[in-house]
Amino acid sequence: MKFAIVLSGCGVYDGAEIHEATMTMLAVDRNGADYDIFAPNTNQFHVINHVTGEVMDEVRNVLVEAARIARGRIRPLAEYTPGSFDGIIFPGGFGVAKNLCSYATDGTDMKIDKVVAGAVRDTHAAGKPIGALCISPVMIAALIPGAEVTLGSDSRYDAEVKKLGGTNKTTPNRQIVVDHRNKVVTTPCYMNDARISDIAEGADLLVKQLIRLSAT
Amino acid sequence: MKFAIVLSGCGVYDGAEIHEATMTMLAVDRNGADYDIFAPNTNQFHVINHVTGEVMDEVRNVLVEAARIARGRIRPLAEYTPGSFDGIIFPGGFGVAKNLCSYATDGTDMKIDKVVAGAVRDTHAAGKPIGALCISPVMIAALIPGAEVTLGSDSRYDAEVKKLGGTNKTTPNRQIVVDHRNKVVTTPCYMNDARISDIAEGADLLVKQLIRLSAT
Repeated sequence: MKFAIVLSGCGVYDGAEIHEATMTMLAVDRNGADYDIFAPNTNQFHVINHVTGEVMDEVRNVLVEAARIARGRIRPLAEYTPGSFDGIIFPGGFGVAKNLCSYATDGTDMKIDKVVAGAVRDTHAAGKPIGALCISPVMIAALIPGAEVTLGSDSRYDAEVKKLGGTNKTTPNRQIVVDHRNKVVTTPCYMNDARISDIAEGADLLVKQLIRLSAT
Repeated sequence: MKFAIVLSGCGVYDGAEIHEATMTMLAVDRNGADYDIFAPNTNQFHVINHVTGEVMDEVRNVLVEAARIARGRIRPLAEYTPGSFDGIIFPGGFGVAKNLCSYATDGTDMKIDKVVAGAVRDTHAAGKPIGALCISPVMIAALIPGAEVTLGSDSRYDAEVKKLGGTNKTTPNRQIVVDHRNKVVTTPCYMNDARISDIAEGADLLVKQLIRLSAT
């Protein structure tokens, strides 16, 4: 069994959330499955100094930075085909809302990167499960009509997800929301206050459920 | 109980190895302890494109990049004092051998960053335990005379560590080497071929042993 993990850079404020990315990889490995890592070959929306929070006068590429988490073993997302995998997983981080789609700046009027949208829609059309952590579910809700997801324990996201045509289910850490009909599994991670062990537990539950769904 | 974790950037080829860093954080958290994260406030030796392996024409700061792994909760290593902690831990990555010391270019003739050397020596002088993963033990061997460490399963490191005045004990993954006299605990991680779950297991054993040693 093999999953595709899609990263959006390297670092919570402008890229993939690193704990969510590595705990997803650990969960897949510990549950006896393999993974390949992908990222879109595009420039980041911007670069944030993670000490000060300020924008840096730099240009960084999503694929090149995500390769840091992948130890160089990464491919452009354009090469992803659902037929080679048992499911696809999106860790979170602001990179999802800035580099994979424009939710951070445009809210529910967001645009979604065409390669990312294609990967999600093709996986769904192939009847394979999709996992999404943290803020990623907002993008899945926009792409899969009627999806039930979680964006954590804050009910203010109910209206946002409803606008996108889905349902938000407020959820604490160490829990997952399973949309059996759409084969979508989501977990809050750092959408809530969380310790790194909460992230590991949420990712583990999510991966276990994806493995179950991919067998159906 | 609280440990200091010292990072050397963000990414295996020019900074801290990200899996080793996050699995160390997870191990500390899961074993009921807390951690603070530190990094030296210096520029990296260089910046490597983690897709191609080539040097990039950029300057990046070790503290600023390490903050990506720390989600911004990081302090300059100069602010570290052993009295506030129960031990100190160095994850690996080429950043250790390029940014914390010059082992990557100078071998056993390496120079060690003064702030890093001070942190290790002061912790040792205070009778507190030191953990080192992957390549970090080579730096510990240079700073603590007679230390017994592991640099993985390759016996070619025996001569290197001997030149530094220490002893290398070849070790497979998921094992630790404990130098009880010097309170130094080391584990191979990516010095050997490894899966991310091997890193998690090695880090967990190392942290459990540091907790035991800090109680003695």
